[in-house]
Amino acid sequence: MRLAPAFHTELHSRLRADLDAAGLDALVLDDPLDVAYVTGFAHFPNERPVVAYVPREGEVLLLVPDLEREYAADQRASATLVVYPEFPGERSPFAVLRDAVGTRPHRAAHAPSTSFSRVRELAVTFEGAEWTVSDLVAGHRMRKTPEEIALHVEAARIADAMVAEGARLVATATGELPTEAELAAHVTRFGADLMHAEHEDVVVVPMLTGGLVYSGANSAQPHRLPGGDRLRRGEPFMLSLGCAVGGRFVESERTFLLGEPTRAQRHYYTVVREAQEVGTEALRPGVRCVDANRACLDVIRRAGLARYLRHRQGHGIGLGFHEPPWVADGDETVLAPGMVLSSEPGLYVPGHAGYRISDTVLVTAGGPRRLTGYPRDLSDIVIGA
Amino acid sequence: MRLAPAFHTELHSRLRADLDAAGLDALVLDDPLDVAYVTGFAHFPNERPVVAYVPREGEVLLLVPDLEREYAADQRASATLVVYPEFPGERSPFAVLRDAVGTRPHRAAHAPSTSFSRVRELAVTFEGAEWTVSDLVAGHRMRKTPEEIALHVEAARIADAMVAEGARLVATATGELPTEAELAAHVTRFGADLMHAEHEDVVVVPMLTGGLVYSGANSAQPHRLPGGDRLRRGEPFMLSLGCAVGGRFVESERTFLLGEPTRAQRHYYTVVREAQEVGTEALRPGVRCVDANRACLDVIRRAGLARYLRHRQGHGIGLGFHEPPWVADGDETVLAPGMVLSSEPGLYVPGHAGYRISDTVLVTAGGPRRLTGYPRDLSDIVIGA
Repeated sequence: MRLAPAFHTELHSRLRADLDAAGLDALVLDDPLDVAYVTGFAHFPNERPVVAYVPREGEVLLLVPDLEREYAADQRASATLVVYPEFPGERSPFAVLRDAVGTRPHRAAHAPSTSFSRVRELAVTFEGAEWTVSDLVAGHRMRKTPEEIALHVEAARIADAMVAEGARLVATATGELPTEAELAAHVTRFGADLMHAEHEDVVVVPMLTGGLVYSGANSAQPHRLPGGDRLRRGEPFMLSLGCAVGGRFVESERTFLLGEPTRAQRHYYTVVREAQEVGTEALRPGVRCVDANRACLDVIRRAGLARYLRHRQGHGIGLGFHEPPWVADGDETVLAPGMVLSSEPGLYVPGHAGYRISDTVLVTAGGPRRLTGYPRDLSDIVIGA
Repeated sequence: MRLAPAFHTELHSRLRADLDAAGLDALVLDDPLDVAYVTGFAHFPNERPVVAYVPREGEVLLLVPDLEREYAADQRASATLVVYPEFPGERSPFAVLRDAVGTRPHRAAHAPSTSFSRVRELAVTFEGAEWTVSDLVAGHRMRKTPEEIALHVEAARIADAMVAEGARLVATATGELPTEAELAAHVTRFGADLMHAEHEDVVVVPMLTGGLVYSGANSAQPHRLPGGDRLRRGEPFMLSLGCAVGGRFVESERTFLLGEPTRAQRHYYTVVREAQEVGTEALRPGVRCVDANRACLDVIRRAGLARYLRHRQGHGIGLGFHEPPWVADGDETVLAPGMVLSSEPGLYVPGHAGYRISDTVLVTAGGPRRLTGYPRDLSDIVIGA
């Protein structure tokens, strides 16, 4: 599944209007996800610059190294290709771009994420232009169009299927349980196979399907990567999975209790379940991110478990697995229809386990709509009791 | 396998001497690989800053979000942890770092890769400090120590085993051949399983094992990601695989001919094989990157196949899958013992296939030493003739 070129041409019009309003002649984007957003070209980033050049007037350019040329054409990138031979090369790739630009910009902007060295290189190459910084693309990326939402919905279906497959593998294991790394590899491949089997045109991105898998005390470390430890009966384990359809991500995460739950396990799970419910309900137009986050985490605080909090409620999700807005302290963004957010409070008991439930949630005029739907009642997540 | 703390303390001494020589009070590193190099802490990067602060005098600090705290401790990060609660948070993470610094720097440097927005934030947070840019860490990363080389050697053994396993899977397939994505998932998992089975302490990085797998006309696109197309008898396919041991990467890449080779297939393969031989022999101390690259690619040009060249001979490899120096036009770096480089000329015939052979090569005083060694004679890479 892939966005039609109309998505990009429509976006180009909106960006041109923004540039006009801001008194800018051009916008230079070198973040791989900004490039994918504006042109539809997804690639595996490396040191070779890949740049979208959006002028106030004229056509959008896509600067690529020669070795990405056909790949960009195959993906029907919505931009005119400008090709440089190799990196670093006898001439700077930015000089090749400059020479392809019709009218040199007087006033141009790059994104906040552009590196110091590239900002310097732009200044040298586009001599005489006044450079500034602009995050106007981030603003557009935050509000998903109906076409993008359709991709998120399909990604959610597959992410849920990955969680179900992971649970099935563990539930049906006889004898030794899988290691974290084995389980992670299994569900990653399951999701990719499903996507290739069912979709005609898969937009392949560096992490098409994947996620974190950890169990017992390891899962008390929120971002620990999957290792060689085996799951153990009597301990919780977490499947924190995601995938991208048309380059648009979702995540679906569940904590499972392996064996008859102990009283403590039930309690921790129930508190997180309630926090996730309250937090998700708060994801409505007009609510500030900081306030949704507070309402969500307050459930855990009121249960007397504040010491086990390690992170915010959630984050925006789209072309980026994590992107603004942040459902967190310090982000006063007002939620609006079209935003897609993770809602994933967690609590982490050192030496015991972590508990987290994450759904990907679309903000609609009518309130929150969960895109992921793997069941989350206690009875749904107990395996082999 | 993991570097002993002595590696990092020794490195800290060298960096301090560099800072002293450059008249700098501190170096701020926020590239995830620079952080791993200086502290030993590997993580999955996201929007939350993770920063190594190296002062000219005093201890190295590692700024992490609270949710990475135990993970950094578990990995025995060689630095004093400074923890901020969450991102964006009520206070900037950089302000938390500033308050943890003993003596405020008068003159400090960040890396060239630091983003424009973070450079601005550093300037605001460390008010009064003079900021400059320094790539001194890149210089150290380029020359591998014996301890690092041991990790590369072990990674090479595993990468070769992944290539062998991919070839075995295809050679023994009865009936339908695997798709690119299936073959990629199989060898990725094989490598990870091997590592977890044989190593006590696996430094898990976001891409522990993996790579590109493509066949026939798809492989004529050097950086195309693996998709749902099946391998086909009579067509070449490429296994372009890599893995990281102790966070240090290698790559091992072979082109296989599936079925009795045609005359054209033999010819293309033989030319690339010769170019790789010549290019690899050129990777000696005292030779400039640009000259090795020219010698290598000239083999292809002399064969009259210049139109099928799409990229340089190779690149440095270490904590980064691609890192300086670049064995390419435009890089005049003089090769020196301890550098580890890919040697991977390729030729890409549109509509037909790509041919590339890559080995990871260590530059030694005595000349090039191939770390990867999967056989590369024509008879070695023909499957099912």
